[in-house]
Amino acid sequence: MSNGAAGRYYVGLDVGGTTMKAAVVDDNGRPLTEPVALPTRPERGQEAGLETMCETIRQAIAAARLSLEAITAIGVATPGLMDIRAGVILDPPNLKPWKNVPVREHIRKVFGKPTAYQNDANAAAYGEFWVGAARGCRSMVLFTLGTGVGGGIIIDNRIIEGEHSHGGELGHLRIALPEQGRLCGCGARGCLEAHASATAVVRRTREALAAWRGPTRLRDYYTATDAELTTRVIFDLAESGDALALQIVDETAYYLALGATAVIAVVDPEMIVFGGGMAEAGEGFRARIDAYVRRFGLPYPSRQVRIALAELGADAGVIGAAGCARQLILGDGRI
Amino acid sequence: MSNGAAGRYYVGLDVGGTTMKAAVVDDNGRPLTEPVALPTRPERGQEAGLETMCETIRQAIAAARLSLEAITAIGVATPGLMDIRAGVILDPPNLKPWKNVPVREHIRKVFGKPTAYQNDANAAAYGEFWVGAARGCRSMVLFTLGTGVGGGIIIDNRIIEGEHSHGGELGHLRIALPEQGRLCGCGARGCLEAHASATAVVRRTREALAAWRGPTRLRDYYTATDAELTTRVIFDLAESGDALALQIVDETAYYLALGATAVIAVVDPEMIVFGGGMAEAGEGFRARIDAYVRRFGLPYPSRQVRIALAELGADAGVIGAAGCARQLILGDGRI
Repeated sequence: MSNGAAGRYYVGLDVGGTTMKAAVVDDNGRPLTEPVALPTRPERGQEAGLETMCETIRQAIAAARLSLEAITAIGVATPGLMDIRAGVILDPPNLKPWKNVPVREHIRKVFGKPTAYQNDANAAAYGEFWVGAARGCRSMVLFTLGTGVGGGIIIDNRIIEGEHSHGGELGHLRIALPEQGRLCGCGARGCLEAHASATAVVRRTREALAAWRGPTRLRDYYTATDAELTTRVIFDLAESGDALALQIVDETAYYLALGATAVIAVVDPEMIVFGGGMAEAGEGFRARIDAYVRRFGLPYPSRQVRIALAELGADAGVIGAAGCARQLILGDGRI
Repeated sequence: MSNGAAGRYYVGLDVGGTTMKAAVVDDNGRPLTEPVALPTRPERGQEAGLETMCETIRQAIAAARLSLEAITAIGVATPGLMDIRAGVILDPPNLKPWKNVPVREHIRKVFGKPTAYQNDANAAAYGEFWVGAARGCRSMVLFTLGTGVGGGIIIDNRIIEGEHSHGGELGHLRIALPEQGRLCGCGARGCLEAHASATAVVRRTREALAAWRGPTRLRDYYTATDAELTTRVIFDLAESGDALALQIVDETAYYLALGATAVIAVVDPEMIVFGGGMAEAGEGFRARIDAYVRRFGLPYPSRQVRIALAELGADAGVIGAAGCARQLILGDGRI
């Protein structure tokens, strides 16, 4: 395979707390291979971490049977805290003990290629914007549903990075008054994440089970450790008609819709996309969110906004990081 | 006065439900005169309305002792509903019975000048961004406090217009769960506007008075019509130490801060500006909002965001509309 008529090749690297993944992506947003993955092992320190990043990039290029010369640019995505403009990882909770790691400059020097740097959720959003659920849209907002709730916002091919690299921190949208909402990991009460992350869904299920008098198969999974009570189980039981599971799923859709109505009031996007683990619950879940958005959102934009599920799955971050590299080369004006 | 070395002149026109105002503004954002003002009289129909707009622009140019030749471009701001991209007033509640009024095209044809069109709150935000409280900032969010709560968002010299012209509709940020919040004019519950607009402040004061057992001078203003119980009275009494008035003002600051923490989670701006009537309450009010933002916002960006009061007063819309005209000429890149 060579750098043919299709144009340029980019490497997208998505660094997570457990694993980092990379793939070569072409000008049309197609990964040439499955992403290669290496363990992040943050506890081994940031020097080792930077070397693992480089090794993951090298293996991705090799997996694509390309040489470094064929690569036009590299995009790296990492979880916060970070300084996106400076290209530096600051002090992210899931990459301890890393601090002030000059990622962009290091990668740029090692490979001698233009290097883009971005927040991981922003990169995932950019992937969905470029070639996923929101391709062809002018503006979109992604909610990523997992242990926490993350987000990313793209308007006119620009990522809303924020002045302090906290643009699109949608898990910390407030959906309830502090005195009434649930306690969030950030220290505040009433954050969307405290109500609608996978962790929060399991916690709400345990609480509801304690008070539930009717029949429910959820009791079979109610153990001391939560090891068996997962969002997957809860969503599957809801699908099969379990009343309590259905109630939990419906409430989750309601909370997410309230978060969506807030982003509608702030940026009024063309499309809102839900990605991450829970989004695999499928069309029924999407339809519930959709209905609540139209019921509780500002009428005019809420009637028109499109609510969709993400399409790129776990590869969104890698593809989006490559898209950021491509954007660095092409400029904001082109998509 | 002539089109001298200072550069170009722009007309800014700000159309409100009661009055429309216009002034000629120079390249540095300085109005050459006080704005001229004519009654809008929407009930006379949209043809008459368009003619009044043209007349206001003509009078503004005459007031500045300029001829039309000296004008480089015109900016027009109107209240929603509107289609910003199309340059059309759709169906705004406070301009009834106007419908589908092609404002931008009409003004452009009559005067033969490049014409920008913008939402009024967005224009006010752009004014504060260009030459007001947020001059020199990269990104800012304006909350305008009046009968309702409006807003505007500027990032990197671009207004966040929204896909359906509803970007920055910050009055409809939800700060409480629908089942717990106050009923808003939009039909939903828990909107910021339902808790913190001037109307809401007076309503909350009446409710609090009914339950208040201690002394308060607010009782002197408690009449059947609310005619004497205004936010001005409430804020002045708070300033003088009245306990109930102080409680109302503090709660208002709290609600506004919750709105501010939502925009921090979404766009993470460099500065948040509070403008409109209530903002004249001054530094004490600002400091209360500031403290609540730092207490309830996502810690990292909330510690750094700057909270300020607007500086351009009632002229922000006129100056901002002229700024939008200037931006049309210079492009997004320059400020």
